[in-house]
Amino acid sequence: MTASSAPTSMPTTGLSALLERLRDLLGDNAVLTGTDVTNREVDWLSKAPCHAAAILRPATPHQVQEIMRLCHAARQPVVTHGGLTGLVHGAEAQPEELVISLERLNAIEHLDPVAGTIQVQAGVPLQRVQEAAAAADMQFPVDLGARGSCTIGGNIATNAGGNRVIRFGMMRQQVIGLEAVLANGELISSMSPMLKNNAGYDLKQLFIGSEGTLGIVTRAVLRLQPALTDTRTALVACPSFDAVTTLLTRLRHQLGGSLSAFEVMWQSHFALIAEHSGRHTPPLATSAPYYALVESLSADSDRHQSLFERAMEDAFAQGLVEDAVIAQSGTQRESLWAIRDDIEGIVEALSPLMAFDVSLPIEHMQDYVSGVETELRSRWPEARLVVFGHLGDGNLHLSVSISENTQATRHEVEHCLYQPLAALNGSISAEHGIGLEKRDWLPISRSPAELALMTTLKQALDPHGLLNRDKVLRWPQSGGESITPSTPQYSEKT
Amino acid sequence: MTASSAPTSMPTTGLSALLERLRDLLGDNAVLTGTDVTNREVDWLSKAPCHAAAILRPATPHQVQEIMRLCHAARQPVVTHGGLTGLVHGAEAQPEELVISLERLNAIEHLDPVAGTIQVQAGVPLQRVQEAAAAADMQFPVDLGARGSCTIGGNIATNAGGNRVIRFGMMRQQVIGLEAVLANGELISSMSPMLKNNAGYDLKQLFIGSEGTLGIVTRAVLRLQPALTDTRTALVACPSFDAVTTLLTRLRHQLGGSLSAFEVMWQSHFALIAEHSGRHTPPLATSAPYYALVESLSADSDRHQSLFERAMEDAFAQGLVEDAVIAQSGTQRESLWAIRDDIEGIVEALSPLMAFDVSLPIEHMQDYVSGVETELRSRWPEARLVVFGHLGDGNLHLSVSISENTQATRHEVEHCLYQPLAALNGSISAEHGIGLEKRDWLPISRSPAELALMTTLKQALDPHGLLNRDKVLRWPQSGGESITPSTPQYSEKT
Repeated sequence: MTASSAPTSMPTTGLSALLERLRDLLGDNAVLTGTDVTNREVDWLSKAPCHAAAILRPATPHQVQEIMRLCHAARQPVVTHGGLTGLVHGAEAQPEELVISLERLNAIEHLDPVAGTIQVQAGVPLQRVQEAAAAADMQFPVDLGARGSCTIGGNIATNAGGNRVIRFGMMRQQVIGLEAVLANGELISSMSPMLKNNAGYDLKQLFIGSEGTLGIVTRAVLRLQPALTDTRTALVACPSFDAVTTLLTRLRHQLGGSLSAFEVMWQSHFALIAEHSGRHTPPLATSAPYYALVESLSADSDRHQSLFERAMEDAFAQGLVEDAVIAQSGTQRESLWAIRDDIEGIVEALSPLMAFDVSLPIEHMQDYVSGVETELRSRWPEARLVVFGHLGDGNLHLSVSISENTQATRHEVEHCLYQPLAALNGSISAEHGIGLEKRDWLPISRSPAELALMTTLKQALDPHGLLNRDKVLRWPQSGGESITPSTPQYSEKT
Repeated sequence: MTASSAPTSMPTTGLSALLERLRDLLGDNAVLTGTDVTNREVDWLSKAPCHAAAILRPATPHQVQEIMRLCHAARQPVVTHGGLTGLVHGAEAQPEELVISLERLNAIEHLDPVAGTIQVQAGVPLQRVQEAAAAADMQFPVDLGARGSCTIGGNIATNAGGNRVIRFGMMRQQVIGLEAVLANGELISSMSPMLKNNAGYDLKQLFIGSEGTLGIVTRAVLRLQPALTDTRTALVACPSFDAVTTLLTRLRHQLGGSLSAFEVMWQSHFALIAEHSGRHTPPLATSAPYYALVESLSADSDRHQSLFERAMEDAFAQGLVEDAVIAQSGTQRESLWAIRDDIEGIVEALSPLMAFDVSLPIEHMQDYVSGVETELRSRWPEARLVVFGHLGDGNLHLSVSISENTQATRHEVEHCLYQPLAALNGSISAEHGIGLEKRDWLPISRSPAELALMTTLKQALDPHGLLNRDKVLRWPQSGGESITPSTPQYSEKT
C-alpha cells in the first residue's frame, strides 16, 4: 500500500532541518510557521493560540504518509487538527511539536445512492456531508452544534455523539470504511464500502474514538440513512424523575423506534435559560422539577403526527406529563431547541463556568445529581449546578459555577463530580473524549487491566509516542520508550 | 480485576499434569475426556468429531480466567466453543489442544427496560435473548437460522449478521458492554451499560469479530430495540438487475427506514427451490431473472399496511416489479421465507455442494455473478451455480455444484469465486468469518499493511498464540513466537 519507499537516514540535526525537508516535499504554502501558527486558536472555548513549531497542511493522504515517514525517522511528535471544536484540550500542541492540519483533505469523493454510502476525506466539515446527503434525498444522522466547523475526521477520532444517538448511534455506528496513516507512515486502507465484511479484524475500530493517538484518519466511507422529513417536537414538564423515565420507556414503544431525541433539563437548567436569562420567552411555567424535549422523526407525515399527539395525550392522562407544548411549526420547533441548545446563555449566566460531560445508568441519575449538588454546596455555599442530558443515552451535561476559578478549585470540583461515578459504573466522558483534561481521571472509569491493555495498544501501534503524545494516556516525562497507565495525580493538579 | 494471583511455576510435564490441575480447580464434571470429547461434533455441516485432548466447562468468568492462567503458564493452546454453528471450521481443535466450552456460562443476568439493555453470559443461546426481550415488550434484532443453538458469545466473536442487517446492523452494533479473558488470564471488563462512553479506547471492539483469537468473550451488555410487531412481507419478480437496485433504493425511501430485509434470489436459485425441489408450491412463475423477498417492520399496523401496499403498487406502475405476492397471513409469510431459507433443499439438489459467502459493491454484483458462472462452466461444463443474497448489505451467498469434490477442486472453485473480488474491493467473507477455511485467501480482501497490523495486534494480545491458534492468521509451524501474515498458499491446498 505504501507507494514510495521510506526515506533513508533522516538527519536528526533538529526541527529546522525537518521543516526544510517538509517544505521541499509539500511546497511552501503547506508549512506554516511564526504568526501563521500563533494567529490560529487551538481551542474555541479558551481561544488559546497554537504554540506548535509549525502547522503542516497536507493536500492528500499520500502527503500525510510522507510527513509521518519523515517524522517517524526524526522521532518528531505531531498533533492532528480537525475543526478544533473539541472540549478536552486534545488539540493542544507543545512548542516542539508539529501540527498536521487536515483542512486541505476536504473532498467528498463519492456518493452511492443504491448502497446508501458516502466516501469523504477527513477534513470535510460535518455540515457538508449532511448537505450532500440531503441533496441525494438521504440524511447523515450525526448532528452537533459545531456542525459547520467540526470535521468528519475529528468526529471519527472522537467518536462524536450529539442529539440523535438514541436513534442512530454515535459516529462509530456510521463508519463503514476507514483509511488511516500510522505513526510510521504506513497507510491502513480499510475503505470497504459494504455493510457486511468479516474478513479478519475490523481494524478501523482502532482509530475511531482513540483521539488521534493510534493513527491519523485520512478518509472514510459513511453510511447514510433514508431522509426522514417529518419532525415532531414537544417540550413537556414532568412531575418527577420516575415520570421522566417512564415517559422515555413508553415513548420508545409507542413511537415504534421513531424517537430520535429525549433531552432532559433539570428545573435549575430550564428556569435559568427559559426565564432568568431574558433570552427566551418561557414556553411553559418554570416550576416543574424536570423538563423533556422530545423529538420523533418519520418519513410518514399524516400518521406520524397523530401517533405523536396520541402518545402525548396518553402521557398526560397517565400523569407522566403535567404541562406540554407541541411545536406547530418549524419556527416553534427551533425556539424549543434554542432553549436546550443555549450554551452561550449558560456561559453568560454562570461565568466562571466549569462544564462536564459524564454518563451513568439512568436509574442512578437522580441520586447522582442531588449528591453532587449537596457536596458542592457543602464546600462552596454559593455553588450553582445546572443539568441537562441526553437521557436515553445515559449522558448528562453538568454546568458548575463557583466564585473561585483556580486550577486547584477546578480539581476539587472534578473530584466531586467524577469520584461518585466509580461506584455507579459511570463514565467520566460520555461524548467529549479524554484529551488532556480528563486523562488523570481515567482510572475512575477504567480498570487497571483495561488501562494496561490500552497501553499495550499504544505501544504496539505508536511505540515512540509520536501521535498526540500525552493525550488520553500519559507519556513518560523522561523520554523513555514505554508508557505507564495513568493514575490519578491529584497532587500534581492542585 | 484479577482476584487471585497467577499460579506459581506450572509443571510443564505435559498435558496430563495440566488436566489434573484443572480437575482439582474446576471439579471432575468440568473436564471431559475420551468419548465424552469424541462424541461431540465440532461442525454441524461436516459432523466431524471433536479431536481435542479435553473439553473444559467453566461455570463462571472467573473459572475461565483460572483456566487461562494455567494454560498461559503451560503455553497450552485452547479453542473456545460456543454453539458450534460456524461455517469456516473455526471450532476445529487439534489433538494436543484443549477446548473451552462456554455452555455453562448461560445466565441472563439483568434486563433494564428503561435503558433498553440486557446483560448476559456468553453461553446463552441467541433465541433465549430474543425471548427475554420479547417478554419485556422489546426485541433483540439479530436473527439467524441457527438461533436455537448459536450463542451470544459466538455471535459476538464472529460478528454475526443475518437477515436484518440492512435495518439494525450486525452484532457489533448491538454490543454496548463486553467482558473478555485474555490469553494470560487477565479479565478485561468493559461492561459499561451506557450508549455513550468515550472514556478511552473502546477495547470491546478488539473481541468482536476476531473469532476468539484475541480473547475469550465471557459476558456482554446488549442493546434492545422497541418491539416492532407489524410485519409486511412480499415476494416480487423483477425484470432486470437494474430494476432490483432501483426497487431497493425506492423502498428504502418510501418505507422511511422500516425496510428490514431485502433478500434477492437469482432465477437459478428461485426456480431450483420453489419449483424443481418439489418442496414448495411456487408462489410466482419462476421465469423472471430476479426475485426479491422484501420485509418491513413497524409498530404501527394500520398505516404500515397501506404504506407497504402503496410502495408495491408504485413499483408495479414503474415496471420495477412484474409479478408479486404480498403475504396476507403469518403462514403465508412463513412459506415465502421458507423458500429463501431452504438451505436443506439446496444441499439436497446440489450435492456435492460448496457454499460461499462474499460481499461486494452492489453495482458490481451482476457482472461478478455472470463472470463467475462463465468461468466455472468453462472449467466444468456441468457446473451449477445458484445465488441469493442480502442485497442491501452487499452480501451474496453462492452455492456451487460440480461433479468432482476433492480438496483440489474446491481450491480451484474458491479461486474462481474469490480472485475477482480483489479488483472489486469485495470481501471473501461477508458474515461467516475466516476461521481456517478462508485464512489463506485473506490477502484477496486485505492489504499487506492491514495483515501486518492484524499480526501486530495478535502478537500484542496473544504473544504465545494460545487462543484459536492458526485461525484467521497462520501460526508458524515451527514453534516460533512470531506470526507472519498469511499469503495465498495455492500449492499447499492443491
